[in-house]
Amino acid sequence: MISESVLVELQNILGREDVLTAREILKTYSYDGTSQWTHEPDAVVFPRTAEQVSAIMKLANAHRIPVTPRGGGTNVSGGSIPVLGGIVLCTTKMDKILNIDRENFTATVECGVVLMNFNTRLAAEGLFFPPDPQSFLAATIGGIVAENAGGPAGVKYGVTKQYLLGLEVVLPTGEIIQLGGRTVKNVVGYDLTMLFCSSEGTLGIITKAEFKVNAIPPAKKTILAIYDDVAVAGENVSLVLKSGVTPAKIELLDNWLIHRIEEASPLGLPGEADAVLIFEVDGMAEAVEKEADKIIEIARMNGAREVRPARDQDEANRFWMARRAGFAMIFGRAPTVLAEDVTVPRGQIPALIRKCRELSRKYDLEIVVMGHAGDGNLHPSVLTDIKDREHFARAEKAVEGIIEAALELGGVLSGEHGIGLEKQRFFRRALGPTVTDLMKNIKSLVDPNNIMNPGKIWD
Amino acid sequence: MISESVLVELQNILGREDVLTAREILKTYSYDGTSQWTHEPDAVVFPRTAEQVSAIMKLANAHRIPVTPRGGGTNVSGGSIPVLGGIVLCTTKMDKILNIDRENFTATVECGVVLMNFNTRLAAEGLFFPPDPQSFLAATIGGIVAENAGGPAGVKYGVTKQYLLGLEVVLPTGEIIQLGGRTVKNVVGYDLTMLFCSSEGTLGIITKAEFKVNAIPPAKKTILAIYDDVAVAGENVSLVLKSGVTPAKIELLDNWLIHRIEEASPLGLPGEADAVLIFEVDGMAEAVEKEADKIIEIARMNGAREVRPARDQDEANRFWMARRAGFAMIFGRAPTVLAEDVTVPRGQIPALIRKCRELSRKYDLEIVVMGHAGDGNLHPSVLTDIKDREHFARAEKAVEGIIEAALELGGVLSGEHGIGLEKQRFFRRALGPTVTDLMKNIKSLVDPNNIMNPGKIWD
Repeated sequence: MISESVLVELQNILGREDVLTAREILKTYSYDGTSQWTHEPDAVVFPRTAEQVSAIMKLANAHRIPVTPRGGGTNVSGGSIPVLGGIVLCTTKMDKILNIDRENFTATVECGVVLMNFNTRLAAEGLFFPPDPQSFLAATIGGIVAENAGGPAGVKYGVTKQYLLGLEVVLPTGEIIQLGGRTVKNVVGYDLTMLFCSSEGTLGIITKAEFKVNAIPPAKKTILAIYDDVAVAGENVSLVLKSGVTPAKIELLDNWLIHRIEEASPLGLPGEADAVLIFEVDGMAEAVEKEADKIIEIARMNGAREVRPARDQDEANRFWMARRAGFAMIFGRAPTVLAEDVTVPRGQIPALIRKCRELSRKYDLEIVVMGHAGDGNLHPSVLTDIKDREHFARAEKAVEGIIEAALELGGVLSGEHGIGLEKQRFFRRALGPTVTDLMKNIKSLVDPNNIMNPGKIWD
Repeated sequence: MISESVLVELQNILGREDVLTAREILKTYSYDGTSQWTHEPDAVVFPRTAEQVSAIMKLANAHRIPVTPRGGGTNVSGGSIPVLGGIVLCTTKMDKILNIDRENFTATVECGVVLMNFNTRLAAEGLFFPPDPQSFLAATIGGIVAENAGGPAGVKYGVTKQYLLGLEVVLPTGEIIQLGGRTVKNVVGYDLTMLFCSSEGTLGIITKAEFKVNAIPPAKKTILAIYDDVAVAGENVSLVLKSGVTPAKIELLDNWLIHRIEEASPLGLPGEADAVLIFEVDGMAEAVEKEADKIIEIARMNGAREVRPARDQDEANRFWMARRAGFAMIFGRAPTVLAEDVTVPRGQIPALIRKCRELSRKYDLEIVVMGHAGDGNLHPSVLTDIKDREHFARAEKAVEGIIEAALELGGVLSGEHGIGLEKQRFFRRALGPTVTDLMKNIKSLVDPNNIMNPGKIWD
């Protein structure tokens, strides 16, 4: 619990209207994009400047009050849930796009800017920020950096860290620091910008970010390919990439999702199809045409049941809507969904999918597979109900099996969702004690009183 | 000095032939790619495995002996000079390319592999590692990672950190750790891989690296453009990039270098020309043609005195040889060269060049400017002689002026050469005390006895 005097101090820093403690508000900030945890904070605060964030952190640090940073609350590993109570520091009022530098292809943005708004403003200048998490309608820049967000475009464009040039961060002890800069080439001491990227809000509050942005490619094209066997789809991914073509996106949907799509907004996909791949190529028009032709040829020659190049942007949008609706369809079908995020070297995708099916049979569960086939980042989702203890226990066993399989196949625990609360129990096993302790020691160095998003990653 | 008993222990770990202490050997390992510092180590050792490196580090840590890692010794900021004596740990016998995974576009290499050998092996598979420091004939992977090497290709392809997926590192205390993995998407705790990248050998010995590699683009084309005014060249760079074309390389040579080229291997460049830009575009043949045409058109319409598309690969090679010979020509003309490495937002290149000319007049010195115009990373080189005290003092003043100008223009101290010994005196001023102390505290955490490449970055 936060004392009355601390609340008064918070009000002095922010004004009364930006310190909220009403019960219904606390409930609103007790959960995120996951479906298995909730915990209410004692207060929710809305700073507007780095100086205010600094004052809040100094106060919290002096009183040992946990602070959990939160933007749009779209985290999918429990990272923005205030599991130890205390303060939720909500960044949504720090929402200014400070600069778009058309000449240098850089942009400076505050932490609370919603990704979609950022991209809308960039688009007016012919620019875009490539990482495209499916939460783009609500996810904010602070979380995108703190989680090193990815998305479908990862196969060609990489993830957030590839675009991050500099940061303004408020440390748990209240100092405001500037890291990195405005240039891609920058080797001035240790790369602390990258230390804060993917730190899941445990090392400080990101208040501002400087990004490299790209010019919007003049042309793009979408191709949908249907397969009777998901293993053939996996091989097609490898064949396309080996041919020298790097599509912007290669997404995979399994048979379960094909059925849901046909129920919701039919694309005429055959019910018995085992998998669908959706490719997008982008770049100069001439290259796009040639690359699209290559993909179509490879798919047709190598076992695809049917290949459909989108006739126009309208049809392409319909294909992509089906993909984007994927998670909503999954979450709509079960009270609790354990949405996995393992990543394997992409050649191992068929093996990982086989393993998911085996686990589905073994534990008698529905496991839906979709994800970013181009970079090996799959999201097998286990449908369950946390209130049905026996069912949920089987679901947790299946998740363990998926994670073990991914690690055995040369992969990692999490590709883009982070550890948060979800994967804590696998963390030390995956990284070993020396590396885990090194990370914990860095955490202690930066946050000696462990007030910054405590209870996450390794606790 | 290293005691006789420690030498015997080193011999027990490595065998007698891999522990060298002869005077002429120590002299060989007393310098690097810079021309102003030398310091002899007490011993040079050549481990072949991570386990041997671990045993060496445990021994050195127990006896508080400085260890300076070194590969090809091509460092250009003094990073591989053993300024406090002790052991030079030379990685050149750890030179195995362990795996090239054509399917996943990844490669696993030991730290002592020479970049050129790595690229030769990759080329046989149709692959390449994009960062292209000019030291590629001798630079080794460990140094390339520890310095986060860049090069001309940075404008399109970024720098080493964009390709680094995982590392094996031996800590100063001897533990062997594995960081990162084999996938681009990987968010499992803090990004320690990036902490070791650009750590300049001060946090541990990198023994193995896992890289993302690219498919060799099917076509490329080179264009040389000649300008009467370097400011017009700078504007041309911006115009090309704003047009949506991202060349693989955009290199700049100034009037001084134009004269040297005409003396050494004439390309018929006019002696009164103020600057030359060399562009390379790569990708699918159709796109390359179109992009090359766009560059030619932009240059011709916007003030270039002459534009020469290379007629064939032979002529392209001649253009690039001239660029590559740049540093050799500069170093051949003066006993000491202070080769700067500042980086500015690329729109500020003309301003930085103007400043260099102003400083050249003010201090009556030759300052040659060349570098990677596409990403704002310039290498103004001040020609001087460390033995002529008065001249050298003026040269140092000029370097200070260049660095101050770069920082004022929104740039950074070093784009790709690192801090090493060269820029220590500017370090704290550039980063401020809080960030400097944070880095030093991380160093103390990882290397409690300060044995790992001591005397660098901030000392």
